[in-house]
Amino acid sequence: MTDIAHHTFPSAYLREFSRQVFMHFGVPEADARLASDVLAVSDLRGIDSHGVARLHTYFDMLSLGRINPQPNLRVVRQTPSTATVDGDNGLGLVVGPKANEIAMEKAERVGSGWVSVCNTNHFGIAGYYPLKALERNLIGWAMTNTTKLVAPLWGAERMLGTNPIAIAFPGLEEPPIVIDLATSAAAYGKIEIAIRQQKEIPLGWIIDQRGETTTQPTDMVNGGALLPLGSDREHGGHKGYALSAMVDILCCVLSGANWGPFAPPFALRQHVPERSVGKGIGHFFGAMQIEGFLDTNEFKRQIDDWIRTFRQTKPVPGTRGPLIPGDPEREAETHRRQHGIPLIQPVVNDLLDISRQTGIPFTTTDDR
Amino acid sequence: MTDIAHHTFPSAYLREFSRQVFMHFGVPEADARLASDVLAVSDLRGIDSHGVARLHTYFDMLSLGRINPQPNLRVVRQTPSTATVDGDNGLGLVVGPKANEIAMEKAERVGSGWVSVCNTNHFGIAGYYPLKALERNLIGWAMTNTTKLVAPLWGAERMLGTNPIAIAFPGLEEPPIVIDLATSAAAYGKIEIAIRQQKEIPLGWIIDQRGETTTQPTDMVNGGALLPLGSDREHGGHKGYALSAMVDILCCVLSGANWGPFAPPFALRQHVPERSVGKGIGHFFGAMQIEGFLDTNEFKRQIDDWIRTFRQTKPVPGTRGPLIPGDPEREAETHRRQHGIPLIQPVVNDLLDISRQTGIPFTTTDDR
Repeated sequence: MTDIAHHTFPSAYLREFSRQVFMHFGVPEADARLASDVLAVSDLRGIDSHGVARLHTYFDMLSLGRINPQPNLRVVRQTPSTATVDGDNGLGLVVGPKANEIAMEKAERVGSGWVSVCNTNHFGIAGYYPLKALERNLIGWAMTNTTKLVAPLWGAERMLGTNPIAIAFPGLEEPPIVIDLATSAAAYGKIEIAIRQQKEIPLGWIIDQRGETTTQPTDMVNGGALLPLGSDREHGGHKGYALSAMVDILCCVLSGANWGPFAPPFALRQHVPERSVGKGIGHFFGAMQIEGFLDTNEFKRQIDDWIRTFRQTKPVPGTRGPLIPGDPEREAETHRRQHGIPLIQPVVNDLLDISRQTGIPFTTTDDR
Repeated sequence: MTDIAHHTFPSAYLREFSRQVFMHFGVPEADARLASDVLAVSDLRGIDSHGVARLHTYFDMLSLGRINPQPNLRVVRQTPSTATVDGDNGLGLVVGPKANEIAMEKAERVGSGWVSVCNTNHFGIAGYYPLKALERNLIGWAMTNTTKLVAPLWGAERMLGTNPIAIAFPGLEEPPIVIDLATSAAAYGKIEIAIRQQKEIPLGWIIDQRGETTTQPTDMVNGGALLPLGSDREHGGHKGYALSAMVDILCCVLSGANWGPFAPPFALRQHVPERSVGKGIGHFFGAMQIEGFLDTNEFKRQIDDWIRTFRQTKPVPGTRGPLIPGDPEREAETHRRQHGIPLIQPVVNDLLDISRQTGIPFTTTDDR
């Protein structure tokens, strides 16, 4: 993001702005707090693509009545350790935390909880949900499908979302291990940056509309597709495709949401699929009591040992050795809590536009 | 495997031979049947590396008393939906199916079951376990750690196993989707084949002992390591590493087994780690009642639709389009049920050696 001038904002300022924006559309205050928290955590952790940079899209969808600001979540079916939840077409930023809460409550009662959710929308960063579980000494999982962007291996069209998997494990003295990964080889945001910078991209990130691998990022927007993690057959592209399929089925087939290419679009400019096979998009949450498996402190001590052992791995020349999953996000958070959230000009312009349309005050640092 | 002459055996013949071999060491008959079933399914499904090709290794370990032929599995701790199991240093081929059974029973009682296992050994193909769950209309998961072979991204030494993840989903008229993938970029067996054929391997499969990527397969045996799925930072190698870490922690830290580089060796020739941080290796099993989420037949109908939709994906030129996970294994099974299991000469020699040492009859097709 160094290619574009930016302004910096305290996290609390952005959080308060998005809370007011959600409330402007009739989202109840408690729900608006939840939703703005998910966005704030994303910005704090350096995942710029999923924070207030997306607020204008939520704003558009709420403005057009495409998202229900006051959903009544309904448990459609359940067992002591599982549930299917209908999100009533609410904000994923509200449905997600509430469905995750159901998973966590079940885990506290019977050892684990697993919740598949239909009729929901984009839920922010997957990593948010296991972070909430950590606060309760639970191992949390989160997955979601997303609008189609990725080709299955040997396919020449978009059939799956970037379908992320997140899970986290707490340490005692060490910070937690936080895993949050899309099942595509590269993030769509990287293609956008390459287009803006007019640079080529590595082979293995995308295919063009005929299905051939290409280094031209513009081929993506001209009918191309992202490749799954592993990229090609030789390097395990069938594995990334299988992981994405797993996420798709757990989130959507199990809950009754729109799977695969039929996921409804998140943003207005995106193509609406010709077929609907369920309701909205889908999420999948899991939570497991650590204490149900072994003493929680013993688990945390072993995680500390795991982290320290992996930090001591002999490094590849030219690197400082392996990171622990979650390191980059934690470093971003430390820096941003102190120095604020940097936003590029197009995002600032989006927020100013929302401010103009709603009357909710928003000013850049320079004017505050 | 076309580079070496082979003999062909009926699956039942190999199954019976391995059952007798396990019983020769005092493994109870029911357990010997379980263990030989896991090997037979692997051979039927075309995963040659994990079938009777491994019998001599089990034979060695049992001969030396390194594996307990009569383990008493113990549930160390449990909640209604989770359990920690101590495998009493039994064959993974026996401990695995029994721990998986506990997960499935819990799923039938409270919706889901999750079992982390310590003090166990190599459990065969991960895909075996979700196949058992399919028979009971459950969604089954299986993971295991294995002896270290894989470097974490930016690490120049072996720290993790190939740590597979398996999960399966039943169709109604279509065959099930069966996912079974190692979290490394390539299988170790492919390196061995390249060494035998004196061929180069693609960049992105392994690093040499200094941590540099290399096309020389012999660099693997000279202190090199496999790369995680994604291979390098640009193509998501940090994701494969994170998935492998997830498997390692769920299987080992949660159960009290030896995680990461401390996994004990499976075969005699392998290096014994200098430190022990738990008992044996670890597995993790999960099972979820489909009916707990939605009507089982409706789920299966949607899976049929999913499969048919993905089969209609526009193909990449030169391919027949995407496969459905499990296709190659199912095709192998159809063929091998009819035509038998092909074994290469070194494997036949291993079985003949076991026969000589135990007195259990084994002859090649030509003599039968």
